[in-house]
Amino acid sequence: MSKAALAWCPFPNEAEARAVATHLLDEKLIACANILPGMVSLYEWEGERGESNEVGVLFKTSAQLRDSLAKRLTQLHSYASPAIMLWDVEAAPETTAEWLGGL
Amino acid sequence: MSKAALAWCPFPNEAEARAVATHLLDEKLIACANILPGMVSLYEWEGERGESNEVGVLFKTSAQLRDSLAKRLTQLHSYASPAIMLWDVEAAPETTAEWLGGL
Amino acid sequence: MSKAALAWCPFPNEAEARAVATHLLDEKLIACANILPGMVSLYEWEGERGESNEVGVLFKTSAQLRDSLAKRLTQLHSYASPAIMLWDVEAAPETTAEWLGGL
Repeated sequence: MSKAALAWCPFPNEAEARAVATHLLDEKLIACANILPGMVSLYEWEGERGESNEVGVLFKTSAQLRDSLAKRLTQLHSYASPAIMLWDVEAAPETTAEWLGGL
Repeated sequence: MSKAALAWCPFPNEAEARAVATHLLDEKLIACANILPGMVSLYEWEGERGESNEVGVLFKTSAQLRDSLAKRLTQLHSYASPAIMLWDVEAAPETTAEWLGGL
Repeated sequence: MSKAALAWCPFPNEAEARAVATHLLDEKLIACANILPGMVSLYEWEGERGESNEVGVLFKTSAQLRDSLAKRLTQLHSYASPAIMLWDVEAAPETTAEWLGGL
Protein backbone atom coordinates (compact mmCIF):
# COMPACT_ATOMS: atom_id res chain seq x y z
CA MET A 1 0.00 0.00 0.00
CA SER A 2 1.32 3.50 -0.88
CA LYS A 3 2.59 5.62 1.99
CA ALA A 4 0.43 8.51 3.16
CA ALA A 5 1.55 12.08 2.50
CA LEU A 6 0.73 15.61 3.62
CA ALA A 7 0.73 18.85 1.63
CA TRP A 8 0.78 22.34 3.18
CA CYS A 9 -0.47 25.29 1.11
CA PRO A 10 -1.68 28.77 2.08
CA PHE A 11 -4.73 30.39 0.47
CA PRO A 12 -5.87 34.04 0.40
CA ASN A 13 -9.18 33.19 2.12
CA GLU A 14 -11.34 30.32 3.39
CA ALA A 15 -13.76 30.50 0.45
CA GLU A 16 -11.02 29.72 -2.08
CA ALA A 17 -9.55 27.04 0.18
CA ARG A 18 -12.96 25.37 0.40
CA ALA A 19 -13.57 25.57 -3.38
CA VAL A 20 -10.16 24.11 -4.26
CA ALA A 21 -10.46 21.38 -1.60
CA THR A 22 -13.85 20.39 -3.02
CA HIS A 23 -12.36 20.07 -6.53
CA LEU A 24 -9.49 17.95 -5.18
CA LEU A 25 -11.93 15.70 -3.29
CA ASP A 26 -14.05 15.35 -6.45
CA GLU A 27 -10.94 14.39 -8.43
CA LYS A 28 -9.85 11.90 -5.74
CA LEU A 29 -6.48 13.65 -5.29
CA ILE A 30 -7.02 14.12 -1.54
CA ALA A 31 -9.15 12.46 1.15
CA CYS A 32 -9.23 15.42 3.54
CA ALA A 33 -8.41 19.14 3.85
CA ASN A 34 -7.78 20.70 7.27
CA ILE A 35 -8.31 24.48 6.91
CA LEU A 36 -6.65 26.62 9.60
CA PRO A 37 -7.98 30.20 9.75
CA GLY A 38 -6.50 33.57 10.72
CA MET A 39 -2.94 32.95 9.52
CA VAL A 40 -0.50 35.85 9.04
CA SER A 41 2.28 35.30 6.50
CA LEU A 42 5.52 37.28 6.27
CA TYR A 43 7.58 36.52 3.18
CA GLU A 44 10.08 37.65 0.57
CA TRP A 45 9.20 36.95 -3.06
CA GLU A 46 11.27 38.11 -6.06
CA GLY A 47 13.22 40.47 -3.80
CA GLU A 48 10.09 42.15 -2.42
CA ARG A 49 9.10 41.86 1.26
CA GLY A 50 5.39 41.20 1.84
CA GLU A 51 2.76 40.35 4.42
CA SER A 52 -0.70 38.82 3.92
CA ASN A 53 -3.62 37.46 5.85
CA GLU A 54 -4.21 33.90 4.70
CA VAL A 55 -5.61 30.54 5.75
CA GLY A 56 -3.31 27.52 5.93
CA VAL A 57 -4.48 24.19 4.55
CA LEU A 58 -3.09 20.74 5.30
CA PHE A 59 -4.17 18.25 2.61
CA LYS A 60 -4.06 14.47 3.21
CA THR A 61 -3.14 12.31 0.24
CA SER A 62 -0.99 9.32 -0.72
CA ALA A 63 2.70 9.49 -1.65
CA GLN A 64 1.98 8.25 -5.19
CA LEU A 65 -0.42 11.17 -5.80
CA ARG A 66 2.00 13.83 -4.54
CA ASP A 67 3.09 15.19 -7.92
CA SER A 68 -0.39 15.09 -9.47
CA LEU A 69 -1.73 16.96 -6.43
CA ALA A 70 0.99 19.62 -6.67
CA LYS A 71 0.26 20.11 -10.40
CA ARG A 72 -3.51 20.36 -9.98
CA LEU A 73 -3.23 22.62 -6.93
CA THR A 74 -1.05 25.00 -8.95
CA GLN A 75 -3.71 25.08 -11.71
CA LEU A 76 -6.62 25.66 -9.32
CA HIS A 77 -4.93 28.23 -7.03
CA SER A 78 -5.42 31.96 -7.57
CA TYR A 79 -1.72 32.70 -6.98
CA ALA A 80 0.51 32.38 -10.03
CA SER A 81 3.06 30.42 -7.96
CA PRO A 82 1.45 28.99 -4.82
CA ALA A 83 3.91 27.72 -2.19
CA ILE A 84 3.16 23.98 -1.95
CA MET A 85 5.20 21.77 0.42
CA LEU A 86 4.62 18.03 0.37
CA TRP A 87 6.14 15.30 2.52
CA ASP A 88 5.67 11.59 3.09
CA VAL A 89 4.39 10.31 6.37
CA GLU A 90 6.40 7.51 8.05
CA ALA A 91 3.48 5.79 9.68
CA ALA A 92 -0.23 6.07 10.31
CA PRO A 93 -2.70 3.62 11.83
CA GLU A 94 -3.98 1.03 9.33
CA THR A 95 -7.34 2.75 9.04
CA THR A 96 -5.66 6.05 8.05
CA ALA A 97 -3.26 4.26 5.65
CA GLU A 98 -6.15 2.37 3.99
CA TRP A 99 -8.25 5.55 3.73
CA LEU A 100 -5.45 7.43 1.94
CA GLY A 101 -4.10 4.38 0.12
CA GLY A 102 -7.59 3.95 -1.39
CA LEU A 103 -7.38 7.22 -3.31
CA MET B 1 19.49 9.29 20.84
CA SER B 2 16.20 8.55 19.05
CA LYS B 3 15.08 11.03 16.41
CA ALA B 4 12.23 13.36 17.27
CA ALA B 5 8.85 12.92 15.58
CA LEU B 6 5.60 14.79 15.07
CA ALA B 7 2.03 13.49 14.93
CA TRP B 8 -0.94 15.44 13.49
CA CYS B 9 -4.45 14.51 14.58
CA PRO B 10 -7.76 16.41 14.47
CA PHE B 11 -10.24 16.35 17.39
CA PRO B 12 -13.93 17.29 17.53
CA ASN B 13 -13.28 19.98 20.16
CA GLU B 14 -10.62 21.48 22.44
CA ALA B 15 -11.91 19.75 25.58
CA GLU B 16 -11.30 16.28 24.13
CA ALA B 17 -7.93 17.36 22.70
CA ARG B 18 -6.87 18.59 26.16
CA ALA B 19 -8.08 15.41 27.90
CA VAL B 20 -6.30 13.08 25.47
CA ALA B 21 -3.12 15.20 25.53
CA THR B 22 -3.10 15.02 29.34
CA HIS B 23 -3.38 11.21 29.22
CA LEU B 24 -0.53 11.01 26.70
CA LEU B 25 1.64 13.30 28.85
CA ASP B 26 0.85 11.17 31.93
CA GLU B 27 1.84 8.03 30.01
CA LYS B 28 5.06 9.68 28.73
CA LEU B 29 4.09 9.08 25.08
CA ILE B 30 4.44 12.80 24.21
CA ALA B 31 6.30 15.79 25.66
CA CYS B 32 4.02 18.47 24.20
CA ALA B 33 0.69 19.03 22.43
CA ASN B 34 0.11 22.16 20.32
CA ILE B 35 -3.68 22.63 19.99
CA LEU B 36 -4.78 24.81 17.03
CA PRO B 37 -8.39 26.02 17.28
CA GLY B 38 -11.12 26.88 14.77
CA MET B 39 -10.18 24.33 12.09
CA VAL B 40 -12.65 23.41 9.30
CA SER B 41 -12.25 19.96 7.76
CA LEU B 42 -13.64 18.86 4.40
CA TYR B 43 -13.27 15.12 3.74
CA GLU B 44 -14.54 11.98 2.07
CA TRP B 45 -14.90 8.88 4.26
CA GLU B 46 -16.36 5.56 3.08
CA GLY B 47 -17.73 7.26 -0.03
CA GLU B 48 -19.54 9.96 1.93
CA ARG B 49 -18.57 13.65 1.67
CA GLY B 50 -18.46 15.47 5.03
CA GLU B 51 -17.49 18.68 6.75
CA SER B 52 -16.75 19.30 10.44
CA ASN B 53 -15.49 21.94 12.81
CA GLU B 54 -12.47 20.57 14.62
CA VAL B 55 -9.27 21.51 16.38
CA GLY B 56 -5.93 20.33 14.99
CA VAL B 57 -3.28 18.97 17.35
CA LEU B 58 0.43 18.58 16.69
CA PHE B 59 1.99 16.15 19.19
CA LYS B 60 5.75 16.06 19.84
CA THR B 61 7.27 12.65 20.53
CA SER B 62 10.27 10.49 19.64
CA ALA B 63 10.52 8.28 16.56
CA GLN B 64 10.73 5.14 18.69
CA LEU B 65 7.38 5.96 20.35
CA ARG B 66 5.57 6.59 17.07
CA ASP B 67 3.65 3.31 16.87
CA SER B 68 2.76 3.21 20.58
CA LEU B 69 1.48 6.79 20.32
CA ALA B 70 -0.65 5.97 17.25
CA LYS B 71 -2.13 2.92 19.02
CA ARG B 72 -2.92 4.76 22.27
CA LEU B 73 -4.31 7.81 20.43
CA THR B 74 -6.69 5.51 18.53
CA GLN B 75 -7.89 4.00 21.84
CA LEU B 76 -8.39 7.40 23.55
CA HIS B 77 -9.99 9.25 20.60
CA SER B 78 -13.77 9.54 20.30
CA TYR B 79 -13.67 8.79 16.56
CA ALA B 80 -13.72 5.10 15.62
CA SER B 81 -10.91 5.72 13.09
CA PRO B 82 -9.06 8.96 13.88
CA ALA B 83 -6.79 10.23 11.08
CA ILE B 84 -3.30 10.13 12.62
CA MET B 85 -0.26 11.18 10.54
CA LEU B 86 3.21 10.74 12.01
CA TRP B 87 6.59 11.69 10.59
CA ASP B 88 10.18 11.82 11.75
CA VAL B 89 11.96 15.08 12.12
CA GLU B 90 15.39 15.38 10.44
CA ALA B 91 16.95 17.73 12.96
CA ALA B 92 16.21 19.76 16.05
CA PRO B 93 18.46 21.70 18.45
CA GLU B 94 20.09 19.47 21.08
CA THR B 95 17.77 20.75 23.81
CA THR B 96 14.68 19.73 21.78
CA ALA B 97 16.24 16.36 20.85
CA GLU B 98 17.15 15.63 24.50
CA TRP B 99 13.68 16.70 25.68
CA LEU B 100 11.94 14.30 23.28
CA GLY B 101 14.66 11.65 23.42
CA GLY B 102 14.09 11.53 27.18
CA LEU B 103 10.54 10.21 26.82
CA MET C 1 19.04 22.41 -6.16
CA SER C 2 18.75 21.88 -2.39
CA LYS C 3 15.55 20.30 -1.11
CA ALA C 4 13.03 22.53 0.62
CA ALA C 5 12.46 22.19 4.36
CA LEU C 6 9.97 23.25 7.02
CA ALA C 7 10.55 24.26 10.63
CA TRP C 8 7.83 24.38 13.32
CA CYS C 9 8.37 26.57 16.39
CA PRO C 10 5.95 28.02 18.96
CA PHE C 11 6.27 31.60 20.25
CA PRO C 12 4.76 33.29 23.33
CA ASN C 13 2.94 35.86 21.17
CA GLU C 14 2.50 37.17 17.63
CA ALA C 15 4.68 40.25 18.20
CA GLU C 16 7.75 38.14 18.98
CA ALA C 17 6.96 35.73 16.13
CA ARG C 18 6.82 38.70 13.70
CA ALA C 19 10.06 40.23 15.03
CA VAL C 20 12.01 36.96 14.80
CA ALA C 21 10.57 36.16 11.35
CA THR C 22 11.66 39.60 10.11
CA HIS C 23 15.21 38.99 11.35
CA LEU C 24 15.30 35.58 9.65
CA LEU C 25 14.01 37.08 6.38
CA ASP C 26 16.64 39.84 6.61
CA GLU C 27 19.35 37.22 7.14
CA LYS C 28 18.04 35.11 4.23
CA LEU C 29 17.55 32.05 6.49
CA ILE C 30 13.86 31.71 5.52
CA ALA C 31 11.67 32.81 2.60
CA CYS C 32 8.37 32.76 4.48
CA ALA C 33 6.83 32.48 7.97
CA ASN C 34 3.23 31.28 8.41
CA ILE C 35 2.04 32.47 11.85
CA LEU C 36 -0.94 30.57 13.29
CA PRO C 37 -2.67 32.35 16.19
CA GLY C 38 -4.56 31.24 19.29
CA MET C 39 -2.61 28.04 19.98
CA VAL C 40 -2.84 26.29 23.38
CA SER C 41 0.15 24.17 24.40
CA LEU C 42 0.17 21.46 27.04
CA TYR C 43 3.64 20.14 27.88
CA GLU C 44 6.02 18.58 30.38
CA TRP C 45 9.45 20.23 30.74
CA GLU C 46 12.07 19.18 33.29
CA GLY C 47 9.48 17.14 35.16
CA GLU C 48 7.02 20.04 35.48
CA ARG C 49 3.62 20.01 33.75
CA GLY C 50 2.70 23.32 32.08
CA GLU C 51 0.23 25.04 29.82
CA SER C 52 0.64 28.21 27.75
CA ASN C 53 -1.10 30.34 25.16
CA GLU C 54 1.20 30.61 22.14
CA VAL C 55 1.27 31.15 18.40
CA GLY C 56 2.66 28.43 16.14
CA VAL C 57 4.97 29.35 13.28
CA LEU C 58 5.84 27.29 10.22
CA PHE C 59 9.03 28.59 8.59
CA LYS C 60 9.93 27.75 4.97
CA THR C 61 13.61 27.27 4.22
CA SER C 62 15.98 24.98 2.32
CA ALA C 63 17.40 21.72 3.65
CA GLN C 64 20.97 23.09 3.53
CA LEU C 65 19.99 26.00 5.84
CA ARG C 66 18.28 23.79 8.42
CA ASP C 67 21.03 23.81 11.06
CA SER C 68 21.85 27.51 10.65
CA LEU C 69 18.15 28.32 11.02
CA ALA C 70 17.84 26.21 14.17
CA LYS C 71 20.91 27.91 15.68
CA ARG C 72 19.78 31.45 14.85
CA LEU C 73 16.19 30.78 15.98
CA THR C 74 17.51 29.57 19.35
CA GLN C 75 19.53 32.81 19.70
CA LEU C 76 16.62 35.10 18.74
CA HIS C 77 13.88 33.32 20.71
CA SER C 78 12.85 34.51 24.20
CA TYR C 79 12.68 30.96 25.55
CA ALA C 80 15.98 29.53 26.82
CA SER C 81 15.28 26.27 24.95
CA PRO C 82 12.69 26.81 22.20
CA ALA C 83 11.22 23.59 20.75
CA ILE C 84 12.28 23.65 17.09
CA MET C 85 11.33 20.77 14.78
CA LEU C 86 12.70 20.72 11.22
CA TRP C 87 12.03 18.31 8.40
CA ASP C 88 12.81 18.01 4.71
CA VAL C 89 10.12 18.21 2.12
CA GLU C 90 10.02 15.43 -0.49
CA ALA C 91 8.66 17.53 -3.33
CA ALA C 92 7.34 20.95 -4.17
CA PRO C 93 6.44 22.55 -7.50
CA GLU C 94 9.47 24.00 -9.32
CA THR C 95 8.49 27.56 -8.46
CA THR C 96 8.44 26.72 -4.71
CA ALA C 97 11.71 24.75 -4.97
CA GLU C 98 13.43 27.62 -6.84
CA TRP C 99 12.08 30.19 -4.36
CA LEU C 100 13.52 28.28 -1.36
CA GLY C 101 16.56 26.95 -3.20
CA GLY C 102 17.47 30.58 -3.94
CA LEU C 103 18.01 31.37 -0.25
